[in-house]
Amino acid sequence: MKDIFNLAMCQMQVVDDKKKNIANALKMIKEASSNSDLVILPEMWNCPYQTELFPIYAEEKENSPSLKAISQAAKSEKTYIVAGSIPEKHNGKTYNSSFFFNPEGEIIGVHRKIHLFDIDVPDEVSFKESQTLTAGNKITVVDTELGKIGICICYDMRFPELLRLMALRGAKLIIIPGAFNMTTGPVHWKPLIKIRAVDNQLYVAAVSPARNDKSHYVAYGHSMVADPWGKVTNEAGSGEEIIYATIDYSFIRKVRVELPLLKNRREEIYHLDKKIGK
Amino acid sequence: MKDIFNLAMCQMQVVDDKKKNIANALKMIKEASSNSDLVILPEMWNCPYQTELFPIYAEEKENSPSLKAISQAAKSEKTYIVAGSIPEKHNGKTYNSSFFFNPEGEIIGVHRKIHLFDIDVPDEVSFKESQTLTAGNKITVVDTELGKIGICICYDMRFPELLRLMALRGAKLIIIPGAFNMTTGPVHWKPLIKIRAVDNQLYVAAVSPARNDKSHYVAYGHSMVADPWGKVTNEAGSGEEIIYATIDYSFIRKVRVELPLLKNRREEIYHLDKKIGK
Repeated sequence: MKDIFNLAMCQMQVVDDKKKNIANALKMIKEASSNSDLVILPEMWNCPYQTELFPIYAEEKENSPSLKAISQAAKSEKTYIVAGSIPEKHNGKTYNSSFFFNPEGEIIGVHRKIHLFDIDVPDEVSFKESQTLTAGNKITVVDTELGKIGICICYDMRFPELLRLMALRGAKLIIIPGAFNMTTGPVHWKPLIKIRAVDNQLYVAAVSPARNDKSHYVAYGHSMVADPWGKVTNEAGSGEEIIYATIDYSFIRKVRVELPLLKNRREEIYHLDKKIGK
Repeated sequence: MKDIFNLAMCQMQVVDDKKKNIANALKMIKEASSNSDLVILPEMWNCPYQTELFPIYAEEKENSPSLKAISQAAKSEKTYIVAGSIPEKHNGKTYNSSFFFNPEGEIIGVHRKIHLFDIDVPDEVSFKESQTLTAGNKITVVDTELGKIGICICYDMRFPELLRLMALRGAKLIIIPGAFNMTTGPVHWKPLIKIRAVDNQLYVAAVSPARNDKSHYVAYGHSMVADPWGKVTNEAGSGEEIIYATIDYSFIRKVRVELPLLKNRREEIYHLDKKIGK
């Protein structure tokens, strides 16, 4: 297993044309993979973030032009890829799903967003994923040559129990494709990412689409990585760009010795129990 | 129950003379209570923050000059007081304990620090509470005329499970007497307070001793209140001062409707169980 490696976060500009999105993702992956072992795309990278479009853009895993393109890119660039998320058709339902590819182009994990994003702040932002999406039921930690990597999607990161359980299952890096907006982004995005990393003493990489002020839902941008001490080691602006970060697991070990948070938990007072997901 | 009220945070300068600390606390409470319904003192307000001093300064609840003085102040000023924390002798052991007084001067709650602070960052800060202290085993939420108020102490706030359980038990305000230091304070104190408030959609008031660069353990200061949207409504500097904040429970209700985080938890996937504490 690699103890130190680079990852690349593709803060893509998503448009209302799936083919263009796929072409853009492939271009960004090609560039990003030349300097990294793991490339990450944002939430809903192939589809505008609009509830009514999710069922229209949705693809089945077995017959998916989007996933096929990413698989081929992983193989040809010999890189791990967390393909942000796409609307996925599965057993007649639509999910917000993140597929994880190894350098052989095989799917080694899938996370279906567990917490659907329903928000209604009058005069600012209103969005109801549950109108068209179904929630997943599984916590996702994948064992790779780059260590154990957890995945959750956007609103999932609002729930500390979920990220704690990923840490307790051995995740050293949690990847979060996410599209916060111009109401929640400026106040919550960065401190949430920092504190999830600090609480669980691991790396957190959160990848947003680029901001488009003309789109229906305006993403905040600011993809970033926070290290186990809560330092943001690299942060994007709001436009389309690729940013890189070095993940060094020896730093996790150092922090966990100096401030033994995970060891100091009082399981006999509060017990966090993972129910078996479907 | 009051839906809106003011609290006062006394960022006291603690010295190595218990009598002086008590006198200073009484003076600050008198001033603070003229503008508030609830006065809060910092962690270890009557004793320097040094492990070897805790057993020496410790008092038994039944025969405590410190608690007697605070009880009288609560009664004469007709105010609630969360008396930060003091070293408490109890059944032959020493605890880091926070006593909560009502305006009749009665003790209505006690929180004994659950997580003892053991840190060792080479060349920066080293501290081991477990050398002289015993950990408490009880989660503390007290029902008052100012609503349900939770108390935890400093390092306790590092553990999201604990604060979540307080929220699930109905706490609308969590009070944290705490003394972060010059290593952890600048990076962790503020984002932790903000995100605990955001995650649990309630108010968090964290009260530190004033900074004294000559003391054995240098406290960070920066007492503050974060509201349920994560906004820090008032923040102290590093010196001795009293800061005030308005707590407005109607804002909690507003935030919980707009972004229904607590309702959106997936208890069937992760189950947080409170074991019965001793």
